[in-house]
Amino acid sequence: MSKRILPLAAMEHLLKKKSSAVRVSNSAKEALRDILEEIGQEIGEKAVRLANHSGRKTIKDIDIKLAHKS
Amino acid sequence: MSKRILPLAAMEHLLKKKSSAVRVSNSAKEALRDILEEIGQEIGEKAVRLANHSGRKTIKDIDIKLAHKS
Repeated sequence: MSKRILPLAAMEHLLKKKSSAVRVSNSAKEALRDILEEIGQEIGEKAVRLANHSGRKTIKDIDIKLAHKS
Repeated sequence: MSKRILPLAAMEHLLKKKSSAVRVSNSAKEALRDILEEIGQEIGEKAVRLANHSGRKTIKDIDIKLAHKS
């Protein structure tokens, strides 16, 4: 299921950002990685379509932001 | 705005997953990183509350999954 693109250590860092006292299981890090990779890929697909629609082959930040909103 | 937790190279990897022919600007990678870090932190906050609610100090995958759904 996971594409294993995002590092697990970064997942722990994100989860502890607001409450550093908490402990984080490995399964929790993997679950968060799966979710963020899924969202990232969905945004990527939409952004590619938006860039192509504008006659560009390069994805810009405006494509990412619009893809995220829709 | 960005917490710079997730690596930019991983953002490019995610964006190119479905269409490798595309090019990705740096601003696009940074925009995606901001979005995913924001989402990751939000899920983290909710997951901590859910774990505490269950009398645990350790975040498990079930907390992440429920936090993502809500």
